Amino acid sequence: MKGFSFLTIWVSLLLLESSSWASDSSVVNPCCYYPCQNSGVCVRFGTNSYECDCSRTGFYGENCTIPEFWTRIRRMLKPSPSSVHYFLTHFEWFWDLVNNSFLQDIFMRYVLTVRSDLIPSPPTYNTKYGYLSWESYYNTSYYTRLLPPVPKDCPLPMGAKGKPVLPDPKVLAERFFKRKQFRPDPQGTNLMFAFMAQHFTHQFFKTDHAVQGGFTKALGHGVDASNIYGDNLMRQHQLRLHTDGKLKYQLVNGEVYPPKLSDAPVHMLYPEKFPQEQRLAIGQEVYGMLPGLTMYATIWLREHNRVCDILQAEHPTWDDEQLFQTARLIIIGEIINIIIEEYVKQLSGYLLKLTFDPPLLFSSRFQYSNRIALEFCQLYHWHPLMPDSFLIDGDDIPHSQFYYNTSLLMHYGVEKMVDAFSRQPAGQIGGGHNINEVLLKVVEMVIRESRAVRVRPFNEYRKKFNLKPYRSFYEFTDDVEMAHGLEELYGDIDALEFYPGVLLEKARSNGIFGESMVEMGAPFSLKGLMGNPICSPEYWKPSTFGGETGFNIVKTSTLKKLVCLNSKWCPYVDFHVPRNEEEAKPRKPSTEL
Amino acid sequence: MKGFSFLTIWVSLLLLESSSWASDSSVVNPCCYYPCQNSGVCVRFGTNSYECDCSRTGFYGENCTIPEFWTRIRRMLKPSPSSVHYFLTHFEWFWDLVNNSFLQDIFMRYVLTVRSDLIPSPPTYNTKYGYLSWESYYNTSYYTRLLPPVPKDCPLPMGAKGKPVLPDPKVLAERFFKRKQFRPDPQGTNLMFAFMAQHFTHQFFKTDHAVQGGFTKALGHGVDASNIYGDNLMRQHQLRLHTDGKLKYQLVNGEVYPPKLSDAPVHMLYPEKFPQEQRLAIGQEVYGMLPGLTMYATIWLREHNRVCDILQAEHPTWDDEQLFQTARLIIIGEIINIIIEEYVKQLSGYLLKLTFDPPLLFSSRFQYSNRIALEFCQLYHWHPLMPDSFLIDGDDIPHSQFYYNTSLLMHYGVEKMVDAFSRQPAGQIGGGHNINEVLLKVVEMVIRESRAVRVRPFNEYRKKFNLKPYRSFYEFTDDVEMAHGLEELYGDIDALEFYPGVLLEKARSNGIFGESMVEMGAPFSLKGLMGNPICSPEYWKPSTFGGETGFNIVKTSTLKKLVCLNSKWCPYVDFHVPRNEEEAKPRKPSTEL
Repeated sequence: MKGFSFLTIWVSLLLLESSSWASDSSVVNPCCYYPCQNSGVCVRFGTNSYECDCSRTGFYGENCTIPEFWTRIRRMLKPSPSSVHYFLTHFEWFWDLVNNSFLQDIFMRYVLTVRSDLIPSPPTYNTKYGYLSWESYYNTSYYTRLLPPVPKDCPLPMGAKGKPVLPDPKVLAERFFKRKQFRPDPQGTNLMFAFMAQHFTHQFFKTDHAVQGGFTKALGHGVDASNIYGDNLMRQHQLRLHTDGKLKYQLVNGEVYPPKLSDAPVHMLYPEKFPQEQRLAIGQEVYGMLPGLTMYATIWLREHNRVCDILQAEHPTWDDEQLFQTARLIIIGEIINIIIEEYVKQLSGYLLKLTFDPPLLFSSRFQYSNRIALEFCQLYHWHPLMPDSFLIDGDDIPHSQFYYNTSLLMHYGVEKMVDAFSRQPAGQIGGGHNINEVLLKVVEMVIRESRAVRVRPFNEYRKKFNLKPYRSFYEFTDDVEMAHGLEELYGDIDALEFYPGVLLEKARSNGIFGESMVEMGAPFSLKGLMGNPICSPEYWKPSTFGGETGFNIVKTSTLKKLVCLNSKWCPYVDFHVPRNEEEAKPRKPSTEL
Repeated sequence: MKGFSFLTIWVSLLLLESSSWASDSSVVNPCCYYPCQNSGVCVRFGTNSYECDCSRTGFYGENCTIPEFWTRIRRMLKPSPSSVHYFLTHFEWFWDLVNNSFLQDIFMRYVLTVRSDLIPSPPTYNTKYGYLSWESYYNTSYYTRLLPPVPKDCPLPMGAKGKPVLPDPKVLAERFFKRKQFRPDPQGTNLMFAFMAQHFTHQFFKTDHAVQGGFTKALGHGVDASNIYGDNLMRQHQLRLHTDGKLKYQLVNGEVYPPKLSDAPVHMLYPEKFPQEQRLAIGQEVYGMLPGLTMYATIWLREHNRVCDILQAEHPTWDDEQLFQTARLIIIGEIINIIIEEYVKQLSGYLLKLTFDPPLLFSSRFQYSNRIALEFCQLYHWHPLMPDSFLIDGDDIPHSQFYYNTSLLMHYGVEKMVDAFSRQPAGQIGGGHNINEVLLKVVEMVIRESRAVRVRPFNEYRKKFNLKPYRSFYEFTDDVEMAHGLEELYGDIDALEFYPGVLLEKARSNGIFGESMVEMGAPFSLKGLMGNPICSPEYWKPSTFGGETGFNIVKTSTLKKLVCLNSKWCPYVDFHVPRNEEEAKPRKPSTEL
């Protein structure tokens, strides 16, 4: 703290020469050097000095670099993220033991708290506010941000290191992201997973591209099933039947599909010449684009209406509104369950059984609220998952025939599509050189956006997530050509951008991506899933879901049930390609759940 | 849980006679009897059966009436609210000891957690939704509600007890609320407190009377200082100077006052014929109505601009936005500090020193979020505080000359007004018969509103807050005439309405109001104050407030400093009328802080 008399003199001096520093471009904002370590907060004082706020970082000193006693102990005892990962993905006998004992709870609680503790809650910064403010807390039109933007007055685009001009996004995409040859995910992830990823995340990733500045159109900031019910009340009511709590639908060959756009006139994105009668109305306006998304939309629509029937049977006095609202909470519960127990499980490759069990957190200091972060949205552009063509029921469908083809779904039906997508491998996300040419423009878009909103360097995020910053491009990737190329373009590893960082980093051995994607993605993901109000002690009880029946639907939901309770026959359905001959066998239309 | 085969038969039967029950008015919704005790949730099954969800209530059994083992122990050990109150307001020697030791922390933490644990967070019901739903969680345009509305299909207005027609609100107001003779608050509360109550609460109580149904216009749902900065961005920017972070102001005789409406054209409520040049622009649109509110608005405006100067001296590079936003967080911190340490202290009469110390809750499961409840808004109509006339600087000003008189403030100045309001006693809130005639229409309005939104009976709220429901009107009040009158009008103590309940209940001896107001109001209040994001571990640190200087302004703020750092001389300023001769002495314009 500064003494008062000193301040007075200092201020007087400043007033005398107040314009000199403002126009003096030689005074660099000291926070451009990112001096504060270990999540310390940099505050500029005067013109060329700063202070680091080390509160509750576990460190002290000018730059929050000196560990407190307990921090020192904790750091000594704490294994590295790569050791933890190795442990969690090996020693099958050990995890078999754990998964069938009380230890599973303990490990699961540990995973949840360690991960979600990394996410500030209440949320902090956004693209406009690089400091805490009521506006950034209150205004949910913004994505939040884990790290503030690069200050506007820094000498270089990434702060104080790197080249004065960042590499051309087109060059980055072509040289490092473009697929040479399809590289399947070594973890066995399939297209059923890939489309779930897309369908699931687009309920909360809806960047408002019409306004620059890190705004989102998904004000629910989490798993609100707005991709099923619409992101506003008007849209929801257009999509609802207003009878028995159900959603509107159409019957094609006796099967339920999303309604025609003419029957539920909501804003949907279709190409201009797309035939009117093939346009479907879905909660999310872009879900007519890919048959995989339309397929999931169809499955969830059927599931919602199925749940309504079950609720109505038990509660004949309930009106349409109560049936709808209660079914919606059940659907949200099912989504979270399937995502944690099957989707995250597949992604992590952990041998620890992941369970959706909200009471695990009831005794923790855990905030049941969530705000979607811009960095989470950035890192979740997983386009390497997409194959070069789609194999359905013996047909090989190129990208060009796949987009905006809603009749494809009705041609094959949900069963054959699920079967096909579950069998076809998805691409490895990490390591570079694995994005189909037609999708390269997405990479360019992501990088352009990240510059517009001034996302901090990849290494700053490594530090924020307790990872060692890379010291060179050759440590960052084993691909010497890539390392060389990146070094040439960025000049300094501390100037490498966030998105190329998480996508191009060397993948873990037999892993779908590198260390950073897991260590940064998992906290955002688990915080979002468990931060949902339905996971709170206030909501997690039978009555919330209409009684034990609904509560059990939530607690026992699986991907297989989701599909097979809503289809004529039960296809091969999983987030993993068939593991053995039994699974690889073709399914027949008579297969039951 | 019901068996499936049973269900099937049951549903078939229902389908056969589905219209019979719907039109059969003899089937009463069993939840109208409020069968579930101890916060159990009533869910209607079939047509005439129900189930109580007793999850985490500590009770089990059909109606959640049988205590679990630990509940039994806890109940045996737990002293009654009145014993706790007696203890907290007596034994001065004991509290002197506590207040000066580490025990103060322990007691304070206990008070905070016990109180705020009673408030569901995330929030639950609202006026439209008597069951949990995504809409009631997500749509912040509603006030939340602690108890669902009385079900719409109940046989009687208050459920299943009481008279078929509720008493005329006018009759209630006249017979039980109208002041016979001014009864000062025995706790010594003054008008400085009364106007603070009004100024403070109208940032989050802004019922939208244009739309029936429990909606609020204050979307911040807590201490967001929207009464200073406006409740939307447009209004805020109209009120801002856009220089040095400051708010617009006008100078009258060299003193700072809120700007003329012509200089900050925001929506304000003034009578049609009110002179244009006397119209002031303030964050809250009704604050031109009472000189006490305009006085507080003036003080906070001065304080904001004073804080901006301090911040700018330390941070000459900060732009207007950062100065404004950081000053706002400091102001919010000052408000919460003054409310807890002085306002709540005065209200409670506790001998325990109340401290604003957010870290007390850092190790608790505490949700840093808040939603304003309709019941909180209802119970906070404390119009008995208002005197029959206002005594300022030797003048006796009747109500008729007090309303919409902004020139009064400029005539006397902040100093004399603060001095006057701090010396004049406010009325006792509880016990009835203490509202000035001109304010009786407020009582009628509150009661009418509570019926429109179907607020549950007072005794149901007693139970919700772990208080024994009253068994008769004669237990509820010592005023036999009132008991008799209420019994005649309501027919049953279980049908007594919420607002008459909290206001007419017998006051505690030497207390400002009865047991229920304290036991119900304090939880809402403390949860709202401590649930503010600035109290979270993420926000509660120096950098949030621009450094140690700002942090200290927050931590050491007092009502006296608030006034005396923003006035020419320091008047007698307190939330309590003068306690002794020294305090009662007239102040001179030369008095310093």
